[in-house]
Amino acid sequence: MTQKIKIAVIGTGRMGSVHVRNLVNHVPEADVAAICDLRLDVAQALADELGITRVVIDYHELLADPQIEAVLIATSTDTHAMIIQDAALAGKHILCEKPIALDLAQIDSALDAVAKAGVKLQIGFNRRFDKSFQRVHEIVTSGELGRPCILSITNRDPLPPSLEFARVSGGMFLDMSIHDFDMARFQVGDVEEVYAMGKVLIQPELEELGDVDISIVTLKFKNGAIGVIDNSRQCLYGYDQRLEVFCLNGAARAENETEHTVVKGTAAGFESAKLPYFFIQRYADCYIEEERQFLRCVRDNQPTPITGEDGRQAVILGFAAWKSFRENRPVKISEITGE
Amino acid sequence: MTQKIKIAVIGTGRMGSVHVRNLVNHVPEADVAAICDLRLDVAQALADELGITRVVIDYHELLADPQIEAVLIATSTDTHAMIIQDAALAGKHILCEKPIALDLAQIDSALDAVAKAGVKLQIGFNRRFDKSFQRVHEIVTSGELGRPCILSITNRDPLPPSLEFARVSGGMFLDMSIHDFDMARFQVGDVEEVYAMGKVLIQPELEELGDVDISIVTLKFKNGAIGVIDNSRQCLYGYDQRLEVFCLNGAARAENETEHTVVKGTAAGFESAKLPYFFIQRYADCYIEEERQFLRCVRDNQPTPITGEDGRQAVILGFAAWKSFRENRPVKISEITGE
Amino acid sequence: MTQKIKIAVIGTGRMGSVHVRNLVNHVPEADVAAICDLRLDVAQALADELGITRVVIDYHELLADPQIEAVLIATSTDTHAMIIQDAALAGKHILCEKPIALDLAQIDSALDAVAKAGVKLQIGFNRRFDKSFQRVHEIVTSGELGRPCILSITNRDPLPPSLEFARVSGGMFLDMSIHDFDMARFQVGDVEEVYAMGKVLIQPELEELGDVDISIVTLKFKNGAIGVIDNSRQCLYGYDQRLEVFCLNGAARAENETEHTVVKGTAAGFESAKLPYFFIQRYADCYIEEERQFLRCVRDNQPTPITGEDGRQAVILGFAAWKSFRENRPVKISEITGE
Amino acid sequence: MTQKIKIAVIGTGRMGSVHVRNLVNHVPEADVAAICDLRLDVAQALADELGITRVVIDYHELLADPQIEAVLIATSTDTHAMIIQDAALAGKHILCEKPIALDLAQIDSALDAVAKAGVKLQIGFNRRFDKSFQRVHEIVTSGELGRPCILSITNRDPLPPSLEFARVSGGMFLDMSIHDFDMARFQVGDVEEVYAMGKVLIQPELEELGDVDISIVTLKFKNGAIGVIDNSRQCLYGYDQRLEVFCLNGAARAENETEHTVVKGTAAGFESAKLPYFFIQRYADCYIEEERQFLRCVRDNQPTPITGEDGRQAVILGFAAWKSFRENRPVKISEITGE
Repeated sequence: MTQKIKIAVIGTGRMGSVHVRNLVNHVPEADVAAICDLRLDVAQALADELGITRVVIDYHELLADPQIEAVLIATSTDTHAMIIQDAALAGKHILCEKPIALDLAQIDSALDAVAKAGVKLQIGFNRRFDKSFQRVHEIVTSGELGRPCILSITNRDPLPPSLEFARVSGGMFLDMSIHDFDMARFQVGDVEEVYAMGKVLIQPELEELGDVDISIVTLKFKNGAIGVIDNSRQCLYGYDQRLEVFCLNGAARAENETEHTVVKGTAAGFESAKLPYFFIQRYADCYIEEERQFLRCVRDNQPTPITGEDGRQAVILGFAAWKSFRENRPVKISEITGE
Repeated sequence: MTQKIKIAVIGTGRMGSVHVRNLVNHVPEADVAAICDLRLDVAQALADELGITRVVIDYHELLADPQIEAVLIATSTDTHAMIIQDAALAGKHILCEKPIALDLAQIDSALDAVAKAGVKLQIGFNRRFDKSFQRVHEIVTSGELGRPCILSITNRDPLPPSLEFARVSGGMFLDMSIHDFDMARFQVGDVEEVYAMGKVLIQPELEELGDVDISIVTLKFKNGAIGVIDNSRQCLYGYDQRLEVFCLNGAARAENETEHTVVKGTAAGFESAKLPYFFIQRYADCYIEEERQFLRCVRDNQPTPITGEDGRQAVILGFAAWKSFRENRPVKISEITGE
Repeated sequence: MTQKIKIAVIGTGRMGSVHVRNLVNHVPEADVAAICDLRLDVAQALADELGITRVVIDYHELLADPQIEAVLIATSTDTHAMIIQDAALAGKHILCEKPIALDLAQIDSALDAVAKAGVKLQIGFNRRFDKSFQRVHEIVTSGELGRPCILSITNRDPLPPSLEFARVSGGMFLDMSIHDFDMARFQVGDVEEVYAMGKVLIQPELEELGDVDISIVTLKFKNGAIGVIDNSRQCLYGYDQRLEVFCLNGAARAENETEHTVVKGTAAGFESAKLPYFFIQRYADCYIEEERQFLRCVRDNQPTPITGEDGRQAVILGFAAWKSFRENRPVKISEITGE
Repeated sequence: MTQKIKIAVIGTGRMGSVHVRNLVNHVPEADVAAICDLRLDVAQALADELGITRVVIDYHELLADPQIEAVLIATSTDTHAMIIQDAALAGKHILCEKPIALDLAQIDSALDAVAKAGVKLQIGFNRRFDKSFQRVHEIVTSGELGRPCILSITNRDPLPPSLEFARVSGGMFLDMSIHDFDMARFQVGDVEEVYAMGKVLIQPELEELGDVDISIVTLKFKNGAIGVIDNSRQCLYGYDQRLEVFCLNGAARAENETEHTVVKGTAAGFESAKLPYFFIQRYADCYIEEERQFLRCVRDNQPTPITGEDGRQAVILGFAAWKSFRENRPVKISEITGE
């Protein structure tokens, strides 16, 4: 049998329960030692279903357990930095959902704690593990197409989130575009300047929050490439996830996946399938792969594929986008970091 | 200016008028010296529109004109063989619509006359000039994919022809599948045996004619490959024209063209365009190319790309298909030719 | 927790181990009580990996256990009928891999035993559970496209099987086309007559076995539709799995899935991904779905979606294809069944 | 015969000769009365080839001919405004290549002259006549998808122009993006603000001209929609021409056309065709349609589909893009027009 890592999952809401099910059913490297949620009944029901024997309310209890080697943090965003810090102090390796925090000082403290403790930290940018985006990355980094010139990312959610979520999420550029900022860095490299424009065209209630639901963000990369990200909170034909890196001698493009491959031809033309509904369907395999790679890094003492610094940079790009949007001007990344 | 060949067009119905317009507007190698039709008014209107100065009823008049070097025959099928024979005797080069005739003896006489006169004859299998089918042909004959194993052709007309046409056309295997028989020979080579099945599922009136409107014909080629052709007289999503040659090490496939490239995404999925309506739209460029290649062969004294023998073989395959269908058994080509 | 059915898996080779892994990891309705294989070490290693506590060599031991409610049979084909019979006598519900047997009398005995015992039997035609083929089935059976006219199935394996397998498999029409025969019945209905042609173009050694590795089979359905199946034992671009039902008013077509969605554009054109390697990749979800539906039928006392009679009919079509191939003539199904 | 308009073509270079050939061969509404070019030999050769009887060096000669009703201007950009003015004074209807001029005062004078003379003026934004872009326009303006939210245009030339051209063309935003600015207005409406970024990544010599060869321009439309245009001077897989209008309830997308429809599958995956080489291939039908629609407007005394004001607005957007690029900030259109 594969050597298993004892891991505890903190937070068993929507994403947390996806992780727990994956770890139990699809990740041979995992031994789910315990799960934890403030809503004990939710966690208990999940544990019962999956045959997990230990359920707790307070995550400190898990951190105190010397048998537990790693934690997966899937709680609400405002608690990530604190739990990372506590887990690092307790010597646990950490896989944490994005974003690390919505405050740069908190992020820096958390990353300091991780560095001092010498534990591994991986941030949950699940899309990096998608087989098509990986393939684009391979093609682009191989150099076979020459230098990257234009990056284009389309990322559109099927339906807007609740206003409750919008109030605490950091807004579109920090809860949604953040995935694209990380993907842009993964595919092309570090960003120097950002220009963001956005509108409220879907959920009028967002106006008073200062949020947007349709946006375009352009990027200037340090290596001379330029890029554009377009986002929408609503997309009735499904979860639109496209990516293209146009290089000097060609392009690599990841097209959408579809729900099925059936084409129906009639006197009205051809009909084909919608896109997968949302991230849980579209990126199902990515979550498993991110969990497996994290646990293998722990097991084999290797660096994690997505570091704390990656998590920090994506948040910085989100801040830059918000500043750019509010001031309607291009914003240099150095304006955010003061570097 | 390109050296032009003086050509006369005999028959100005549906296909004939397409040819005349092409020759005038798109074929720099052609000088349309005259057109001819039993319905003088039809021909005259066309001539007026295009500025053609000579219009006749009787094609013999044109054959007697020493200035005319070539004729394009687009009359009804039952007159093809006779006009070919007359034109050959008059020393004219000939581009003739398919099929040559529905009677093997007539075909043989016509081809004999052509051979004796030493004139050029090209049969109007327009699809051989399609850029995608040409590309498949290049790939297959290059040998890069290894020997051909399975040929598949789908050929479906948008709407059934009139019963008047069906009564004189030779039936589905001779007026429609004949294009596929020629394409099969073009892509893979000569055929040894045919098995044909068919049904009347669209136009019940065809039953009494002994015709069919849905069919599948399988082929055994002399080189060991096998093949299948499926045909339908009705296809509501447009003129379905697909071809695949599956070889030992890969396949080459010509997909359908579409009316436009627009995809519309909605909550119901994606919608895309129908196929081009029919052969005049789908193969518009092929007719021009067939005319140009014919005239260049005349001008440069080269063999024509589609010979009388090609025309004869396609008809033989049609006869074999009908015999197979009627006797419900595989039929060898040698049973038709007696060779 | 979902009510689980205690199931034992007999045979833990290639397909058996896929089933065991699925049942443990992806089928909440299953409680894998035991696994069984003549090669005890193979079964034991699998059990160790998955935490299965009981491993036996002799399947009779499992049949004798009153706690076990169902068995999944994934042994070699020549033992299916016998084990079905034994399992039925022992009152176990049965999910059995295809084909039931290569002998009609054996099949009939097995089905008799099942009928007498009143247990459930499901045959492993996994492709019926594919979401795209299911979607085609829904469209066709809804009647929205009018009556089916032409069925086309393309089924090409990536690489030929070993000669050892070919010697005992029943040959191409019984080990490979059998899936297509079942799919044809699923999509369009019962078959009346079959015509089969085949060649040895890939593995010359098959000649002496009387087998083929390239084939085309045409079908006449009882409802008047016609159909064609093409098969190849080798397909270098991946596992080619396509299906089209052309109806009076349109068509429904299941296209291939691909390994990823990346398109690379260069001066040479566009490159895109191969097809999934083989059935274990392509139909991964189907096996899970077939297992789940079987177990739900057991749990809820419902008829199974693929019956013993379905398994029998597919074998009969295979016999008819072989007879047709050997005699080079269309063969009526009644010639095989004597009905 | 269709009533023909006597038209003269001024300028018989690359675009001019395309127009002349079209008018002679494909536009039944046209009677090409004369052609004109400073390089008389070039014009004469074309006239000889096409049977055009009158060739002149000085366009004033044509304007003085009362028989000539219309002129098509395809000279170098710096002469457009002057010739428009002269032609208007002479009472000729005008179809003029884009851009009208690179100077707003010149444009205004030319448009004034046209208005005073009451002649028709159409600007050569050929892409508006593309069947796919037309279809997107129909879908979007029908309102069936709800309000437009995000416009995306990709426009990439196969190879960079000569430096000679780059020196006089007005630079990328005025000679290339100008088509996209017009398309943006055609699909979504008037623009309020522009932000442009660009790089020299292909032709280093452009640096000293202050030009760019890779760019992204974002747009804010007056109706609240936002948009993005990406351009490249080099694209090795062909002339990349894509467009998407993402609306509140769905999207309409025009995909690229391809050189042929053949897909080749091998052990390396699938290969498909490049895109058409360049605008003359890709938009061949559009030029014909633009010519026909212009001549019909003249014949039937209807307003032209693309007005002088459309030509002026596209140039203004080009100026705004250059200003934005140079100052690295969003620029309002009113800053250019002073309105």
